[in-house]
Amino acid sequence: MPSAYVTIKHDRGEDEVAVEEPLEIRVDGEPLAVTMRTPGHDEELALGFLFGEGLITQLRKVGLTEDFAANTVEVEGPLEHDPGQRRFYTTSSCGVCGKGALEEVAVHSPPVPEGPVIRRSLLAHLPDLLEQPTFERTGGLHATGLFEPDGRLLIAREDVGRHNAMDKVIGRALMDGILPLGQRILCVSGRQSFELVQKAAVAGAPILVGVGAPSSLAISLAKDRGMTLCGFARRGSVNVYTHPERVS
Amino acid sequence: MPSAYVTIKHDRGEDEVAVEEPLEIRVDGEPLAVTMRTPGHDEELALGFLFGEGLITQLRKVGLTEDFAANTVEVEGPLEHDPGQRRFYTTSSCGVCGKGALEEVAVHSPPVPEGPVIRRSLLAHLPDLLEQPTFERTGGLHATGLFEPDGRLLIAREDVGRHNAMDKVIGRALMDGILPLGQRILCVSGRQSFELVQKAAVAGAPILVGVGAPSSLAISLAKDRGMTLCGFARRGSVNVYTHPERVS
Repeated sequence: MPSAYVTIKHDRGEDEVAVEEPLEIRVDGEPLAVTMRTPGHDEELALGFLFGEGLITQLRKVGLTEDFAANTVEVEGPLEHDPGQRRFYTTSSCGVCGKGALEEVAVHSPPVPEGPVIRRSLLAHLPDLLEQPTFERTGGLHATGLFEPDGRLLIAREDVGRHNAMDKVIGRALMDGILPLGQRILCVSGRQSFELVQKAAVAGAPILVGVGAPSSLAISLAKDRGMTLCGFARRGSVNVYTHPERVS
Repeated sequence: MPSAYVTIKHDRGEDEVAVEEPLEIRVDGEPLAVTMRTPGHDEELALGFLFGEGLITQLRKVGLTEDFAANTVEVEGPLEHDPGQRRFYTTSSCGVCGKGALEEVAVHSPPVPEGPVIRRSLLAHLPDLLEQPTFERTGGLHATGLFEPDGRLLIAREDVGRHNAMDKVIGRALMDGILPLGQRILCVSGRQSFELVQKAAVAGAPILVGVGAPSSLAISLAKDRGMTLCGFARRGSVNVYTHPERVS
């Protein structure tokens, strides 16, 4: 696996710096999206991205191409529906791209499953259980974790893009045959934006916990999809913004 | 001006939450881009975004439309070049969207101006001078500031998207007739990604300072464009990753 960080000299010493590089996602040989991401788990990223966009609903064959451009991942088509003229380009901080009108912003998804009821103290504690080895080295990465209802960590991924970290977790879950997420809990290291709630909703996550603040639209979408959205999970405390019936 | 935050009840009280809403940018009536942003300074955002993409090089007429869809901003065309099939959609954390191939990622820009030489202690102190009133309320916003070489704050903007905060500052600078930035310094509240360095380079900023970590590609691009890139500016300290000749 390629390294997620490199050592860079600066004027007073050296730092370990998070790698950010473009990855092209192709479907049946056709370029569909370019995302700025941290190398590693590229197949998961491609699958998770396509799943979150509603473009695939089942596992597809996927692999890094032997092209001279190493940063290319190939997914077998066809897609569930035509993405149309949309071409996606996502920077290291972007989630859903290439859409040209307001009504295209939201990806359709059904309400999330009923899910478990979780102790508040466990939800507040989840970020402490989220492994972030490269963040500890670089200070430059976001993380997403997937947890069992008892707090056991199933999958953790890091990336310079918070949406990529989420895509990698969901792609891994797709490969492991555990979508929709049903009883499981997603936890993110940063703020909760519209795009992260949307990706979690499409994956059928009943609960999304974040260390940072939610945005207004993230709260609106979580309420609409029936998701329990928790923010500011730190120092043993957490705020529950929507559907508190899953919190005991 | 619309409020940048709303008060939201949660299960243990209430929070002030950063507003995130879509904004459609139209040129000569044609939809070009949708960005997820915090309302306010929308004209600046539209101009700064188009400038950073190389689609305009001078000030254009710009205004909010009287359309029933309030979140639309109109810019007078024509553009400097045809964006082609590209449609841009940027989430609250994304910078440059709608591009479908690796070679389209980078926006062409000349090397940045020679610029000033700044004391290291001032660079380390800049984030403390960056006004972030809505972040203090919500914990959910990024900020960008434009500073004179003596540390005087000229423009400060906040947004749920870090690229939007940068676009708003550059749009304001375009309206004020102070592009390219030449002697001035840009400072961002978070990490420095490829997209932020690119926007700063197109605006001709010789120095970019950030509170957080740079990515590998941000460092590569800053080096190539002749920009002084500074990270981890906190607690009186700062690391200079590229072109330290502007730091004394």
